[in-house]
Amino acid sequence: MTSITPVIGVDFGSDSCRCVIADAFTGEELASAVAAFPRWAAGQYCDPVRRIFRQHPLDHLEALTQAVRGALSQVAPAVRAGVRGLSIATTGSTSAPVDADGRPLALQPAFADNPNAMFLMWKDHSATLEAEQITATARGWGGVDYTAHIGGVYSAEWYWANLLWVFRHDARVRQATASWVEHCDWLPAELTGTTAPAQLRRSRCAAGHKAMWNERHGGLPSQAFLSRLDPLLDGIRERLYERTWTAETPIGTLTPAWADRLGLPGDVTVGVGAFDAHMGAVGAGIRHHTLVKIMGTSTCDIVLAPTEELGDRVVEGICGQVDGSVMAGAIGLEAGQSAVGDAFAWFARVLEWPLQDGEAREALRAELLPRLERAAALEPPGAHGVAALDWLNGRRTPYADQTLHGALFGLSLGSSAPQLYRALVEATAFGAKAIVDRFTDSGVRIDEVLAIGGVARKSALLMQIQADVFDQRIRVAKSEQAVALGAAMCAAVACGLHADIPAAQRAMACGFDLVYEPRPVEAAAYRLLFRRYREMGALVQGMKQEKVGHDAA
Amino acid sequence: MTSITPVIGVDFGSDSCRCVIADAFTGEELASAVAAFPRWAAGQYCDPVRRIFRQHPLDHLEALTQAVRGALSQVAPAVRAGVRGLSIATTGSTSAPVDADGRPLALQPAFADNPNAMFLMWKDHSATLEAEQITATARGWGGVDYTAHIGGVYSAEWYWANLLWVFRHDARVRQATASWVEHCDWLPAELTGTTAPAQLRRSRCAAGHKAMWNERHGGLPSQAFLSRLDPLLDGIRERLYERTWTAETPIGTLTPAWADRLGLPGDVTVGVGAFDAHMGAVGAGIRHHTLVKIMGTSTCDIVLAPTEELGDRVVEGICGQVDGSVMAGAIGLEAGQSAVGDAFAWFARVLEWPLQDGEAREALRAELLPRLERAAALEPPGAHGVAALDWLNGRRTPYADQTLHGALFGLSLGSSAPQLYRALVEATAFGAKAIVDRFTDSGVRIDEVLAIGGVARKSALLMQIQADVFDQRIRVAKSEQAVALGAAMCAAVACGLHADIPAAQRAMACGFDLVYEPRPVEAAAYRLLFRRYREMGALVQGMKQEKVGHDAA
Repeated sequence: MTSITPVIGVDFGSDSCRCVIADAFTGEELASAVAAFPRWAAGQYCDPVRRIFRQHPLDHLEALTQAVRGALSQVAPAVRAGVRGLSIATTGSTSAPVDADGRPLALQPAFADNPNAMFLMWKDHSATLEAEQITATARGWGGVDYTAHIGGVYSAEWYWANLLWVFRHDARVRQATASWVEHCDWLPAELTGTTAPAQLRRSRCAAGHKAMWNERHGGLPSQAFLSRLDPLLDGIRERLYERTWTAETPIGTLTPAWADRLGLPGDVTVGVGAFDAHMGAVGAGIRHHTLVKIMGTSTCDIVLAPTEELGDRVVEGICGQVDGSVMAGAIGLEAGQSAVGDAFAWFARVLEWPLQDGEAREALRAELLPRLERAAALEPPGAHGVAALDWLNGRRTPYADQTLHGALFGLSLGSSAPQLYRALVEATAFGAKAIVDRFTDSGVRIDEVLAIGGVARKSALLMQIQADVFDQRIRVAKSEQAVALGAAMCAAVACGLHADIPAAQRAMACGFDLVYEPRPVEAAAYRLLFRRYREMGALVQGMKQEKVGHDAA
Repeated sequence: MTSITPVIGVDFGSDSCRCVIADAFTGEELASAVAAFPRWAAGQYCDPVRRIFRQHPLDHLEALTQAVRGALSQVAPAVRAGVRGLSIATTGSTSAPVDADGRPLALQPAFADNPNAMFLMWKDHSATLEAEQITATARGWGGVDYTAHIGGVYSAEWYWANLLWVFRHDARVRQATASWVEHCDWLPAELTGTTAPAQLRRSRCAAGHKAMWNERHGGLPSQAFLSRLDPLLDGIRERLYERTWTAETPIGTLTPAWADRLGLPGDVTVGVGAFDAHMGAVGAGIRHHTLVKIMGTSTCDIVLAPTEELGDRVVEGICGQVDGSVMAGAIGLEAGQSAVGDAFAWFARVLEWPLQDGEAREALRAELLPRLERAAALEPPGAHGVAALDWLNGRRTPYADQTLHGALFGLSLGSSAPQLYRALVEATAFGAKAIVDRFTDSGVRIDEVLAIGGVARKSALLMQIQADVFDQRIRVAKSEQAVALGAAMCAAVACGLHADIPAAQRAMACGFDLVYEPRPVEAAAYRLLFRRYREMGALVQGMKQEKVGHDAA
């Protein structure tokens, strides 16, 4: 009988929570379970048209319990009793106001139905004006440019923009707010009873990428800067934090209440949390000079560079670079595309429009993308002249600009649905290449490319075209649960089973089962087509500026 | 009992021939019939992918016979016996090589199956290189610029390009070619037995708009110019023509054989032919300073200006201006858009793609455009940011450029099929406005706008948006057969029943049943959106030139 040393990785996605139990020395996935967020699934607290997306903390606690219990029910009692560690990955920036005990305000009866007292999901765009103001202030106030390490442009999706928006729009919540947490700060603290400000171990990953925390400028932005944004922020800094921790760090053990609720032993060590993309990169096998693409509705691209190698250099136009955001001793650089799976689903939705009957539409939906993909694969590179810009949800990187839009060019009367689809796929690959170039042009070498996520497994067309466009091999991680696996690796380190993340990766690696090699003829064709993509993009951006100029005139 | 004075108008479309019998003094439509071209309907002699479209002259003769007989069968014998005149409108430039007797070569057994011995349809694009060469030579050879009155750019769809292409690609046809005729030259001559070169009365409309014939430079281009294009054209000019005739001119009466074949009296006068758009403009009620839009798969826009008023002025970037092309004593100016109904049908085809079952697709097709139109009508001007360029089949005018393509901008994940459709409709209206501006910027006043054709009657959305964009009332002719009615008006003049075309129009006018008034709020919105359309267009053109520049480098 072989011995099993189970650790748990939990992956909080946008719609559900996934729990994986893995062996800390073989990586074998022993069990897994998924639980949806019930209020979210019912559409509560959201208004997609206005891009308001709030999530109730009870959704998280209930789904976590259900998923962990679900996974545990699949293993023997001895395995359950042997669980050593648990770490959590979450979406981000997904943040919420908390009370003096460090618990989200929505858990208090008085705020139970107030969306401003809940988590503002990463895709909530309420704070567009606040984000613009933060960027403008950081550039123009004469002090430190706090956006330097987060790509130069602050996003409406991030921590400070959300905090400021709520403070401006909801006085009751503002007055009740003692501090403000990221989802991945709060959950591990909740499980270990360490939510109180003095005990809370904030995630380095979240703080560095979304809250402009950086050791180089002394942690969070100064109070002077924050007050300049709005006097409503007076005194906020001292209610937040100075220190942050990397995902190797243990926080403590489960509270008896949580051990009981989850059905786990009381001595399970909980590690510091991090964002799903970063733990996913760990799960995929990231190491120095690796690009890991986490591909779903959007993508997150994580690159790891040795801290000493990058030195003082700042890569412009990405989502940020944070020492320790993936693992200690290395800089995690983050970039990404705003719409990938979402762009393909959009096109399918357009094609579904003629079907009025809900059932027929449902039936079509399941097969439409695979059919489009097969048909588009028969078209040559360049889709017979049809070309696209992939900014259907704005552009995340390089050089964030949420006001940009997608486009289709080169349309003729013979342009077919598969050609339009192929153009969107090619544009997505070009958008990914533009990100790679941003890294390499800034001196960040990329030696290997790995991919995880639903789109990486489902769209062979995109993956092959991407390999051609990059002129580089792309391997897709075998595990469909690489984020949860990465969290399990972090848990194995946090509870002391491995010395560091690379050691955990070596022991627990899931390997790769899909490999896309670049094809020379296609790669040559795409070199030319990529140049055209960049030219089109520059023109459309020029048009936008032209328009802004006119409007102002 | 009222007396009836019947005249016949025949309209040769791209797919079929329509015959209308109308009363010359009331305009009442007494009967009508349509006959399809049988070989064309079977796809013979065509290759749509390579844009080769040839039509067999037997298709024309058989369909003409069937349509005339079909219409006559609906009227009393006395009406049939009383028919006084017949005139024919055709598509153009649709031209063919003829033998020494003036008959299309494909009517000879040796050439019966040779597509190069048939009519090269207006939409045949074989001669792209030839057209470019003609434009370049006309500009650079140091002599007269023969393209000055046809808009400055010679088209692959036109007479000389087609002739030159056939001469270069088919020596057997070249050697057998005695002369070269337009469809509207040949058909009336065939009916009256006047196809022989010495007798043939060439259409002023076809010669002026498509063959660079103009009195100001002494008729057709000089032999020196033609030989410079290609020595294969040596001696061609003397085998063509010096004079041309307007549509008021009688040619003669039916030959006994044709009278018998058609079932008409032998003394029916046949008038000189012209292009469908020009006779359609007559049927719609064109007069000085009127724009008539003939709206179908593409549009043809005809404006009439008094000869003395236009003087020596040349309107750049249109399809041509010809003294007498619509009626004697006035200059007919022609412009148009390459894809209108075709662009909408293209979008419907894209949306139909998911349906594999032919029957389901057929069922959908009938209702899809009306449904899209209804849904798009509910969207605001500007289609929530989605915008298009309407050049899906290149740009006919202003400033012809077949290498341009359509585009869709401003795409977001929320962009819906109706929004995309509305953007295409708006772009079509903007394309029409760009043509109107080309006229008015050149000092050609447009006092009223009339429309005929299938799209004018079917797409209330396009017509209303066009009225908004023009900020001008648009009226749609009541008759669905305005081209054939215009031909009947011409016939009534040619056989002496009316003194001139305005007199025939007054007597036979069909009136208007749809009137679109501009809406002030929408008109204001579209003024801004039109500016954006022009900017987008300029950028896309710039991109193309950029690309050509790179390719050359």
